[in-house]
Amino acid sequence: MSVSRRGFLGGLGLAGAGVGVTVAAGCSKAEKATAAAPSSNTGTVPFHGAHQAGIATETQDSLAFAAFDLTTTSRSDLIDMLRTWTTAAAAITAGQPVLGDSASDQVPPADTGEAAGLPPNRLTITIGFGPSLFDGRFGLADRRPAALADLPALPGDDLNPDRSGGDIAIQACANDPQVAFHAMRNLNRLALGTASMRWSQLGFGKTASTSASQTTPRNLLGFKDGTRNIRGEDKSTMDSFVWVGKESDQEWLHGGSFLVARRIKMQIEAWDHDFLADQESVIGRHKVTGAPLTGAREFDGPDLKAKDSSRELVIGADAHIRLASRETNGGVQILRRGYSFTDGMDAQGQLDAGLFFLAYQKNPRQFITLQRRLGAHDALNEYISHTSSAVFVCPPGVRDSNGYWGETLFA
Amino acid sequence: MSVSRRGFLGGLGLAGAGVGVTVAAGCSKAEKATAAAPSSNTGTVPFHGAHQAGIATETQDSLAFAAFDLTTTSRSDLIDMLRTWTTAAAAITAGQPVLGDSASDQVPPADTGEAAGLPPNRLTITIGFGPSLFDGRFGLADRRPAALADLPALPGDDLNPDRSGGDIAIQACANDPQVAFHAMRNLNRLALGTASMRWSQLGFGKTASTSASQTTPRNLLGFKDGTRNIRGEDKSTMDSFVWVGKESDQEWLHGGSFLVARRIKMQIEAWDHDFLADQESVIGRHKVTGAPLTGAREFDGPDLKAKDSSRELVIGADAHIRLASRETNGGVQILRRGYSFTDGMDAQGQLDAGLFFLAYQKNPRQFITLQRRLGAHDALNEYISHTSSAVFVCPPGVRDSNGYWGETLFA
Repeated sequence: MSVSRRGFLGGLGLAGAGVGVTVAAGCSKAEKATAAAPSSNTGTVPFHGAHQAGIATETQDSLAFAAFDLTTTSRSDLIDMLRTWTTAAAAITAGQPVLGDSASDQVPPADTGEAAGLPPNRLTITIGFGPSLFDGRFGLADRRPAALADLPALPGDDLNPDRSGGDIAIQACANDPQVAFHAMRNLNRLALGTASMRWSQLGFGKTASTSASQTTPRNLLGFKDGTRNIRGEDKSTMDSFVWVGKESDQEWLHGGSFLVARRIKMQIEAWDHDFLADQESVIGRHKVTGAPLTGAREFDGPDLKAKDSSRELVIGADAHIRLASRETNGGVQILRRGYSFTDGMDAQGQLDAGLFFLAYQKNPRQFITLQRRLGAHDALNEYISHTSSAVFVCPPGVRDSNGYWGETLFA
Repeated sequence: MSVSRRGFLGGLGLAGAGVGVTVAAGCSKAEKATAAAPSSNTGTVPFHGAHQAGIATETQDSLAFAAFDLTTTSRSDLIDMLRTWTTAAAAITAGQPVLGDSASDQVPPADTGEAAGLPPNRLTITIGFGPSLFDGRFGLADRRPAALADLPALPGDDLNPDRSGGDIAIQACANDPQVAFHAMRNLNRLALGTASMRWSQLGFGKTASTSASQTTPRNLLGFKDGTRNIRGEDKSTMDSFVWVGKESDQEWLHGGSFLVARRIKMQIEAWDHDFLADQESVIGRHKVTGAPLTGAREFDGPDLKAKDSSRELVIGADAHIRLASRETNGGVQILRRGYSFTDGMDAQGQLDAGLFFLAYQKNPRQFITLQRRLGAHDALNEYISHTSSAVFVCPPGVRDSNGYWGETLFA
């Protein structure tokens, strides 16, 4: 009475067909699915390319993020897992199930199934390698980029080591949280015996746009966030600040990037009791419009020198946007694609919520430069604390269906 | 340089205007917004009516749920909070901010702001009262429905008391998780000094449809869930099994319902290692199609007597759908609208994930009847455990903008 595994696979294939996407079985060319995608919100983002998807990609609505530690010390086991993950990621991001089903129903299904029937929802899966992966266990010590090291202690840190670090990071972003969770769950399952999840974080709402075609979302402070963010389509800024180029000491990394992840807890109850005028002074922007306090429209540039009739700076010396601005940081920019989170209540009975900050950059020094100043002087520090921290190097994209995540590193 | 509070309110009013919804300031008639809603996925569900919204309402994509305990023993404080909550809920569900802003920016904003610019996304906010609310603190002991009592110990219970019970429950459902979270956060804020959050749960994916217009979603077992669920538009079944009628000992409750909430943790790693044929035997349905093992299509009725060529029951004696079926439970049905959840990892390093089960019914006896059998005999018990439990009585709907949640209870 049971359907055959082939039938199951066929049924899961309907996930794509149901939304007008036809994908040949075993085909890993995401582009085919893209062409037929019914809409930009539920369609496919190509998996293969010079860069990994999920960095320049227009920010999706939901995040599932996890850090893994290797439980093996075998380099070939690690490579096998990366190959397996890559094949699975190429399939899932194209709206297919994890492949590998047999014709028998006397085996576990290759895919866990909860995303069957759902369109790809612009799923991207992005991998990063932590400093610990280069510690010698896998013969990678001389492949470690000089720029990759655990972040130094930074002002304002209140880090939980159990939610920090990790050998490998996986960022899954999609316009449906079930699609993002499905991706994470299946990679976790495929890692069994090779790596285990160290910590994870769900994000329920994007806090920064990475495309000029998107409006600017609001964070849990109620403010528009990321107005001056780098846009993925701005190739020259991406090349200057996000993609690793020839300046790197590691040729395998060209086309990659560095990811800094920080769980920033907000004291939202305290923030909610602050006066509107104070909130706006802390940020340096108007709450409704998102305009800088010196401007009228969101995208007006901030005038950091402007003073009011009392000769006080309009955008205060400790205002968040001043301290984070490229103008006061030697031109430094980073690409942010963080997410709002809530994890229930904390030990004090307050909402445990905030911003899971994800930033991509050519060199983690960019984040360190910004956070050294923000952590020490930002007026916002009264309301936030950084409770986890991790840094990862993200390899370049997988060029085609013969490649795998990190192939240039292991070549 | 700061915008006035009136300007802020006006700006937030744009949340509606941006999606073609025009709502007069202070207007609490949700219907006006509904008429102009751009699509069924992002539009408005009317707040006022004979029944509370969020029960018969077509299941939305995301859930924010919380239980609160009163920190006051004053009946009038409680009523004041319910009035304040009702006004806020009517506004938020119509896509407006929490009202009450003054013209000054020297006060905290009345709304936390993170949903400004987002459409209503079919937000519903539903309230329930726990047995403890009727314990005498508020003069309600003789208003307690006979059917309302803490659930008895049930087979398979593994309950965490810190995530169980509560004086009041709030269920916020929406097609955007940020909209659901915003509702919960603002009610929590308005409760300050009167009630405090006891526990909360986010749900990222619906697991049951409550309308024939919806397809059946999949739970984290990868199976379609809720194929035989009650449909909100099926008035006669709703009246028979969900809405409290004249059979109740409490007239104030007519038009209300009872909510049972259970956090069901799934051992998904173990489940994922089970053979497909075994998974299908445990559930009693085919995984791909959702058809019963005795049928070919999802909505085929299960043949509970059918035997195979070895004279074994095709849908086993301990199959989940047999034990949960109305045919084997004296016709009992409940309306389910549960959500998949994940809360990171558990103490064993496994994914802490499962189904946050929410069921509405005329009398909690309906759930107790089903769970007594399921908890004792269900083949699925190898893979699940109930880790939290709560029961609430949900008052009828708020009839108009002069009313408030629970007004018939306090009248």
